[in-house]
Amino acid sequence: MVGKTQKKVLSSPLENFKVGVDNVIFSVDTGQNRLLVLLVMRQEEPFINTWSLPGTLVQQGESLEDAAYRILAEKIRVENLYLEQLYTFGGPNRDPREAPDSYNIRYLSVSYFALVRFEEAELIADKVTGIAWYPIDKIPQLAFDHNQILEYGYRRLQNKLEYSPVAFDVLPELFTLGDLYQFYTTILGEGFSDYSNFRTRLLKLGFLSDTGVKTSRGAGRPASLYRFDAEAFAPLKDKPLVFV
Amino acid sequence: MVGKTQKKVLSSPLENFKVGVDNVIFSVDTGQNRLLVLLVMRQEEPFINTWSLPGTLVQQGESLEDAAYRILAEKIRVENLYLEQLYTFGGPNRDPREAPDSYNIRYLSVSYFALVRFEEAELIADKVTGIAWYPIDKIPQLAFDHNQILEYGYRRLQNKLEYSPVAFDVLPELFTLGDLYQFYTTILGEGFSDYSNFRTRLLKLGFLSDTGVKTSRGAGRPASLYRFDAEAFAPLKDKPLVFV
Repeated sequence: MVGKTQKKVLSSPLENFKVGVDNVIFSVDTGQNRLLVLLVMRQEEPFINTWSLPGTLVQQGESLEDAAYRILAEKIRVENLYLEQLYTFGGPNRDPREAPDSYNIRYLSVSYFALVRFEEAELIADKVTGIAWYPIDKIPQLAFDHNQILEYGYRRLQNKLEYSPVAFDVLPELFTLGDLYQFYTTILGEGFSDYSNFRTRLLKLGFLSDTGVKTSRGAGRPASLYRFDAEAFAPLKDKPLVFV
Repeated sequence: MVGKTQKKVLSSPLENFKVGVDNVIFSVDTGQNRLLVLLVMRQEEPFINTWSLPGTLVQQGESLEDAAYRILAEKIRVENLYLEQLYTFGGPNRDPREAPDSYNIRYLSVSYFALVRFEEAELIADKVTGIAWYPIDKIPQLAFDHNQILEYGYRRLQNKLEYSPVAFDVLPELFTLGDLYQFYTTILGEGFSDYSNFRTRLLKLGFLSDTGVKTSRGAGRPASLYRFDAEAFAPLKDKPLVFV
């Protein structure tokens, strides 16, 4: 306790951290109209056998993003998975491993977010005791503060749907306006807009093109199939825009 | 190197981190029509005597937010400073202290963002070798990756202006539509919208109320003073909305 060390102790000592990444991966099962979240069952303490967001701790020399992609590559196979940083949770006492009688190290979580196409996403069950797409309204008590992280991710997803064309990244290439409305309803909840306003608004934005092809489902009259026209959208890309 | 330790070494070892917070604090000098950023001159290595965003390292038991507010309280006096988390920068080699021959510890930065009222903000020059409001177009080379963090914060600010009523938190209580347009132009740049469209759009949103009072400045004819009507805005608060 002399010299440099003493000086550090006299001012407030810095915290030591391990850094984790946790991924909030959403998907929409358009057949069942359900918003799903990818959960894995933890296989180690703390919270062994408890459902959690797929996450891992950052290894030496690894970037945060690389850690997030690494753990996902072990859990899910999907094309074009694009992770976006969500939020960093780093308060004291968010991880039981922080107990002063253990290692005196804090655990910080940088969360990431993605929306993937349900039909193309394949879960990998190797070396796990549990992996599942959980419907958003059936989420159990999760490990750590993962319910809070998930809640934050859900709000971001809703926000993105309102302000960006993210829906068209995960819908099938051809869709009816009813499909699109159902997709929005699944994520934003009933009553976010009535169908007729929604339809008018989206068509007015000018980047949905009618393919001329009709589809018949159930008892209703045939509906037109649309596709997202990326070229028509391009000039709008950097403009503030509301989708619903 | 036996038992538990050995197992850890055989799999990839985890990285150790110190965690910093860095604040991107914006203000608008409406007199000069300039967007300003708060910078402080670093007083220690690395990057001693280099301009940087005001930041600090997280101390034991301290939350990320508390650390961010702690360092700001030493640099600036302002009412109602509300920090919003921006982004976490945590890649390897972002801090020269990470050199393997020093301590083998990574430095991660959680950045925060705020827009403060220029007239009310008072810089604190105690115990600093430099502190300044820098115009956004005159930012020097900053310490670490702070130019990149600032760039990210600037985009967030522009985004918030487009999608939220943040302007009214920092404008004077009474303003002309010309003042408001000038404020937007200062942050979004010339040509984000022509004045006439801007005026029509903002008035149509329904939460600017004409106080009936006129003001005369320079040679133009007197302009009406408006105020932001928080009550009229309340029902729109959670609706997706574009301001410009």
